[in-house]
Amino acid sequence: MKGFKFAGICAGIKKNGGKDLGLIYCEKPAAAAALFTRNKVMAAPVLLGKEKIKKGFCQAVLVNSGNANCFTGEKGINDAIACSKLLGNCLDISQDLVLVSSTGVIGANLPMDKFDAGIPAIVKQLSFEGMDNFADAILTTDTHRKIVKKTGEIGNKSFAIMGFAKGSGMIRPDMATMLAYILTDVDILPQDLKNCLSAANEKSFNRITIDGDTSTNDTLLALANGSSEIKINDTDSKIVFQNALDEVCFQLAKMVVKDGEGATKFVQIIVKGAKTKKDAFKASEAIAHSNLVKTAIYGEDPNWGRITAAAGRSGAMVIPENIDLFFDEQPLVLKGSWVGEEAEKKTAKIMKNNEITITLDLNLGQETDYFFFCDFSEDYVKINAEYRS
Amino acid sequence: MKGFKFAGICAGIKKNGGKDLGLIYCEKPAAAAALFTRNKVMAAPVLLGKEKIKKGFCQAVLVNSGNANCFTGEKGINDAIACSKLLGNCLDISQDLVLVSSTGVIGANLPMDKFDAGIPAIVKQLSFEGMDNFADAILTTDTHRKIVKKTGEIGNKSFAIMGFAKGSGMIRPDMATMLAYILTDVDILPQDLKNCLSAANEKSFNRITIDGDTSTNDTLLALANGSSEIKINDTDSKIVFQNALDEVCFQLAKMVVKDGEGATKFVQIIVKGAKTKKDAFKASEAIAHSNLVKTAIYGEDPNWGRITAAAGRSGAMVIPENIDLFFDEQPLVLKGSWVGEEAEKKTAKIMKNNEITITLDLNLGQETDYFFFCDFSEDYVKINAEYRS
Repeated sequence: MKGFKFAGICAGIKKNGGKDLGLIYCEKPAAAAALFTRNKVMAAPVLLGKEKIKKGFCQAVLVNSGNANCFTGEKGINDAIACSKLLGNCLDISQDLVLVSSTGVIGANLPMDKFDAGIPAIVKQLSFEGMDNFADAILTTDTHRKIVKKTGEIGNKSFAIMGFAKGSGMIRPDMATMLAYILTDVDILPQDLKNCLSAANEKSFNRITIDGDTSTNDTLLALANGSSEIKINDTDSKIVFQNALDEVCFQLAKMVVKDGEGATKFVQIIVKGAKTKKDAFKASEAIAHSNLVKTAIYGEDPNWGRITAAAGRSGAMVIPENIDLFFDEQPLVLKGSWVGEEAEKKTAKIMKNNEITITLDLNLGQETDYFFFCDFSEDYVKINAEYRS
Repeated sequence: MKGFKFAGICAGIKKNGGKDLGLIYCEKPAAAAALFTRNKVMAAPVLLGKEKIKKGFCQAVLVNSGNANCFTGEKGINDAIACSKLLGNCLDISQDLVLVSSTGVIGANLPMDKFDAGIPAIVKQLSFEGMDNFADAILTTDTHRKIVKKTGEIGNKSFAIMGFAKGSGMIRPDMATMLAYILTDVDILPQDLKNCLSAANEKSFNRITIDGDTSTNDTLLALANGSSEIKINDTDSKIVFQNALDEVCFQLAKMVVKDGEGATKFVQIIVKGAKTKKDAFKASEAIAHSNLVKTAIYGEDPNWGRITAAAGRSGAMVIPENIDLFFDEQPLVLKGSWVGEEAEKKTAKIMKNNEITITLDLNLGQETDYFFFCDFSEDYVKINAEYRS
């Protein structure tokens, strides 16, 4: 994809010495749109980013892992501004075109000496091939990098979309999830890009959960540099672009869940036959968030009692006698009754798979919604009990 | 306390061979009030109990552990009725005066042969001294029995209240918590007993959480047999009785949290200075339910970033710059700023205690609320991954 360069280096921010500073650079200013966390406690780079994105253009994105620059007050804001300035100087662009993101421990100040040395150093590493290094540098407890690439065609010309994301704890839908960056070479107005991004987010990052906590730093950013010379300016082109963008966000969101802290299984819960769309959302969200459901899945136990109990407490309209429940294609409960020993055995076998689809049909209406989530293992507890030490 | 008898036996319902059938018997019908789960998936004994309690009187309560008789359809209801009938016959009382409760695995039918043999057997064991056996028989994953006794005085006469409860998973406030039974010898009208019980429940069982899941079987039942000859019929006597009842429920609720599945620490979160009462509730509930907060506490980490982030996503009005945060008496955050290394060290020491009070002052108003919760350990995952196997 023409016009984008990347880098990722070890700047000494992370205690473990891993890559912790990443940079995306656009050769010319790109149309930009972003969605941020809805948490009322917002990190400094989010507060700053919300202002800067209003212009609709961006040329460089600096991301550090290992420190969230959150709950750092005025000093946190000043540190984020200082990083923008220094990067702007090194790249010879206006600091207004620089966005910064941070992820990691909440409540500690950025180690500014590492940035003073790291920013000039990372600029020298920029190259198209640097994308893997960038993808690595934004990770925290993730076990592997997350990149998705997709191409599409409009007229006879092809365009590309590339997405990067990091998980893998403090994941709950409420506007984007942790950090995700989408780059594309289409030519699109910032407001149109925002609309497409919001629509894609609603179907992807807003439908995943790992542990039910919404991060203070969640950021989903899209940059479009126009280098493909394909204009997204009419209904037909918007549909093609939206579909491709949906797919990239969807794949990234799934990768985040699959790499959830301590996760051993990837699960989709589909709630069908709900009376209202809100009921379908509530029931699927309650099941995806239930620690009892998640630990049962970890134990490979098709514990349908916990699934139906979670739906029952969700606030959605539920009539137990109407419920059908399927694991993949296998029914285990039909019209509120357990199907039997044979079905239980078949389901127990399905539970051994790494990917499972659970379908709960409430049989009360026509509405459907879904969530992607992971199971809950001892390792999640270990990772999070020892996170700051 | 005159007029109550108890028993608890091994009837063969639990796989591990432990006590699993308990009985409370009142020598004469007692005024009765009960609160039940708000989960829309309700167990058969809850559906039956909701009807029976309307009469306001009860003489016997049969409780089994090991099987929740939930999601068992019409057969579940018929089984619960059959148990009531058989017990009524054995005790020579009307089955209308018999309440049944169940707790354990959801979705399996009651093993009726065990009840057919167990009910006549348990009636023979009734005695005042049987209360420990009763308290043991209602437990599931609890590690010890939960009994609270309290006496009070009105005029020159004394009355008594005794409470039993079981935890210790699927605990989230939404009308009572799992099973709890309150017995008293005061003379009170059923409707007055209900009002007192609701008030006590709001301050106790509705302010505890272990894992955020609301049970399908939650039942809080109070029986008053009048044997003390103290009438609770005016404002003064109601205040004395309410205070004693509050205390019993409060102690029981705390015992349930302390014995939470896998719990190693008992925590109270107090949210002060909220703009509205609802905000205080929302913020304290979000913190008490946060897996990230709970795992940090297990790791003895005063991770204030996660606590403030949970408040921030709760929906309550939160201005980070206003926040004060205390662990016991030790401030760690004041006006949104981390107090410093010395305070962090002192807090880390407090985190090693088994009981911790965390106070979050939002400094936005006058409203306060609180929750009791426990930490989240690998053992919670183990217990719940293997629950049905």
